[in-house]
Amino acid sequence: MVPIAAPSKVLPAAQPPFEQIEREAESHRRAGRQVVVVQGLGFVGTAVAAAIAAARTSAGAPRYFVIGVDAASSGGRWKVAQVNAGASPIVSPDPALPALIGHAVQVDGNLRATVSERVYGLADVVVIDLPLDVRDPRDTEAQRIDVDLDTFRQAVRAVGRHMRPDALVLVETTVPVGTCERVVLPALREERARRGIDASPYLAHAYERVMPGPNYVDSIRRFWRVFSGIDEASATRAREFLRTYVDTESFPLCELDDTASSELAKLLENSYRAANIALIQEWTLLAERIGVNLFAVIDAIRVRKGSHDNMRYPGFGVGGYCLTKDSLLAQWSARHLYESDVTLPMTLHALRTNYEAPLHTLGLLRSLLDGRLRARKIAVCGVSYLAEVADTRNSPTELLVERLLDEGAEVILHDPYVRDWPERPADTVHTDLARCLTGVDAVVLAVPHPSYLQLDATALMRLVGGRCAIVDTRNILSDATAASLHHAGWQLAGVGKGHWRMRGYQCAS
Amino acid sequence: MVPIAAPSKVLPAAQPPFEQIEREAESHRRAGRQVVVVQGLGFVGTAVAAAIAAARTSAGAPRYFVIGVDAASSGGRWKVAQVNAGASPIVSPDPALPALIGHAVQVDGNLRATVSERVYGLADVVVIDLPLDVRDPRDTEAQRIDVDLDTFRQAVRAVGRHMRPDALVLVETTVPVGTCERVVLPALREERARRGIDASPYLAHAYERVMPGPNYVDSIRRFWRVFSGIDEASATRAREFLRTYVDTESFPLCELDDTASSELAKLLENSYRAANIALIQEWTLLAERIGVNLFAVIDAIRVRKGSHDNMRYPGFGVGGYCLTKDSLLAQWSARHLYESDVTLPMTLHALRTNYEAPLHTLGLLRSLLDGRLRARKIAVCGVSYLAEVADTRNSPTELLVERLLDEGAEVILHDPYVRDWPERPADTVHTDLARCLTGVDAVVLAVPHPSYLQLDATALMRLVGGRCAIVDTRNILSDATAASLHHAGWQLAGVGKGHWRMRGYQCAS
Repeated sequence: MVPIAAPSKVLPAAQPPFEQIEREAESHRRAGRQVVVVQGLGFVGTAVAAAIAAARTSAGAPRYFVIGVDAASSGGRWKVAQVNAGASPIVSPDPALPALIGHAVQVDGNLRATVSERVYGLADVVVIDLPLDVRDPRDTEAQRIDVDLDTFRQAVRAVGRHMRPDALVLVETTVPVGTCERVVLPALREERARRGIDASPYLAHAYERVMPGPNYVDSIRRFWRVFSGIDEASATRAREFLRTYVDTESFPLCELDDTASSELAKLLENSYRAANIALIQEWTLLAERIGVNLFAVIDAIRVRKGSHDNMRYPGFGVGGYCLTKDSLLAQWSARHLYESDVTLPMTLHALRTNYEAPLHTLGLLRSLLDGRLRARKIAVCGVSYLAEVADTRNSPTELLVERLLDEGAEVILHDPYVRDWPERPADTVHTDLARCLTGVDAVVLAVPHPSYLQLDATALMRLVGGRCAIVDTRNILSDATAASLHHAGWQLAGVGKGHWRMRGYQCAS
Repeated sequence: MVPIAAPSKVLPAAQPPFEQIEREAESHRRAGRQVVVVQGLGFVGTAVAAAIAAARTSAGAPRYFVIGVDAASSGGRWKVAQVNAGASPIVSPDPALPALIGHAVQVDGNLRATVSERVYGLADVVVIDLPLDVRDPRDTEAQRIDVDLDTFRQAVRAVGRHMRPDALVLVETTVPVGTCERVVLPALREERARRGIDASPYLAHAYERVMPGPNYVDSIRRFWRVFSGIDEASATRAREFLRTYVDTESFPLCELDDTASSELAKLLENSYRAANIALIQEWTLLAERIGVNLFAVIDAIRVRKGSHDNMRYPGFGVGGYCLTKDSLLAQWSARHLYESDVTLPMTLHALRTNYEAPLHTLGLLRSLLDGRLRARKIAVCGVSYLAEVADTRNSPTELLVERLLDEGAEVILHDPYVRDWPERPADTVHTDLARCLTGVDAVVLAVPHPSYLQLDATALMRLVGGRCAIVDTRNILSDATAASLHHAGWQLAGVGKGHWRMRGYQCAS
């Protein structure tokens, strides 16, 4: 453990006035610390603020005073109050996140939060971690993609209205290609010009590769970063800043020539992943028809290290914030920031395929239940979009549940991590599996949460209290469990498990 | 070096009679060797025959007597004569291929070739390495894909007419999914039944992953293999056979449950590669429009080891025998072997994108030359489909050349490896670069052959004898070379090099 600075005994108020934060900033500055403002306390901004607050000098002292800013809405105020109480405003299975926030707020006193935009005027560095959304990610038609850039632009203007002339603005938000050059830079210049600042701002782009899960904070601090500056001086500032809180010895920085390049890199990176998931979805349908176990096939292919070892497995669909929209940002930028009619047909087709993937599970369910879903009691196990997390953003479970309800099914939701479902607030998500499974007509295993992976035939028969239909969307059941359930009279279907043919288990092995 | 068997002093005749081969087989069998017949002396069969002939017992003696069979056509007879003269019937930059063939024929006397199908009756193992083609790989419409299975089926029937009852038939040909179960097995059973053999044949599938280039033979002997048997006994026979000539200690075998699984694995493996090349083609057009160097972007992304390090780079197009057709075999099998209407839209779209990719280079050329190609003298450097090989099958250069000629350009072809171009026999391919480049209006660098990679601005200006336009399709020129050419008044365009904007070099770095 590194030695820490003298503790600040008094917790800040839930909504400290600007003047108080200003005084604290001055005090930290006198102690040799730079002031970093993180704009946006969402899934990324919170972890970034915690990581920067944890950065140390070689002497072991905190390197920065960090101020998190969120919107002056009720949700924003709640997040600010959480941080100021030393707690994380987002739920994460990574214990490091609340630990770092608690330590920074309660021990080091170098992390505060506010809704006041005036704090931008205190910053040496402003890190932009705002969300930037596509209005309807379900619409993958190139001409109709609609990106809400106004909110983002207004937030950037707020920075421009207050920022110090020589502060660095570091954009971490995933943005359409060209945003730094064509949106952020003009907005900052205009606001600064109104204040009589003629000098061009220091502006850089560095995208994060944050991954929800048990290594959340390390996905910020101990992972490769790509960055670029709007000019060489900005790139230098960004490089020096990133080096202070990212382990760049183990994960060297990649610098690209211009901000459009690093903006494009982020979008391509996620589009590549999304497209490869969609590709396997196509082959899943073929493999099921032929009676092939596609998981085994892919295992055999993945043996080719370096060229084929990242092939995706069959699954239920794609959720989360990034893979569901980043391709749309890329397509949007072609038309709206570069007046180009270049299209990305495969890339957009992939997003559509991924969005619709849960309908295949719906079809399997329908087949197992003789085509009738009305009044059937169906337990859907897994509401988050990823194993071991509570994050439900764009969860593929949403489309399945919508359609099941449309067809008149009675849907029971289970997830060991999810307490409530912001996208469907009226739906109750249960955590007691026995209560959810008793007497159901069918079970859908949608997410490979560890507690589902532990289910064997005996446990399932006990929980259901008899037999029913079951769709395994993620290779959660072992072949042995599937065989036992089949012998006990269950109807089985497995996504990508063509050798578990519907209405009967016929594994070739 | 392992000790070798007593040399056979006499070279076989170019077309030895069956009886002579039969006598040799009997003699080898008495020496404890099994007889292996390889059906098809093409790109794969030749290398497989050489690899099997080189297999040794623990005492260092040849393990097999290998007989290569090709069609009784003029081409087939030529290949047979080549092998019997101890020479390779295919051109390969791997010196191991002619060396192994020469040694087997001239020293060990354990490799012969013939056009007589009667030799199938001598075999303990028949390895099927026939080609299996799609009639028109340019047609990617699911309903219209037409696979010529008849030739293949007839060749299999020939095996069935002669094979020993307990011989193993090992299919290595890339086939539509279901071919072993639904085409090969019934054909063998029928032919065997006519001969009064009721027992089901030993039948297995093991696909090769041969890669043209300097490690051709090692891509057979020292690489992972996937295999499967039509039943457990066949799988066991296949496993034991593969272990004798593949280095399975370093590259363990992957066994799948059924032949449909390994047939599908081969097709998916290559479709995955083809789809990922096509995906980057889409992003290449976007990157060029935006002015981004996509090679640098992809380098930054590939830093993510294990998940993103096999992302493809921009290029000129896709050629060769496998990536241009294997997806079509998969789509064909759905409809024709499984009566299924499952389609693979992304997979087929990718093949179309790859096929048309050279048209992008055509567009770049047209832009550099003010839209007019008529009567322009254009040197196309690279006729093979891959660096460092002479293999021209489905080379993307073909489509470019076709279109250039359609538009009235004068095309000069250069390739250091290609002597003649079987797909366009009327076209002359030159090996003298100076003669090809003197006074041209434009140069297309299509294949990253080492001699092109060595070209710098001084060399190019000297060869051309002035300035001209140049399209670099494979990142062959360094940025420094591009800058020098630009300063010397050349018109430049680079595929995926958006920062070399057309009609001028504007690299950001």
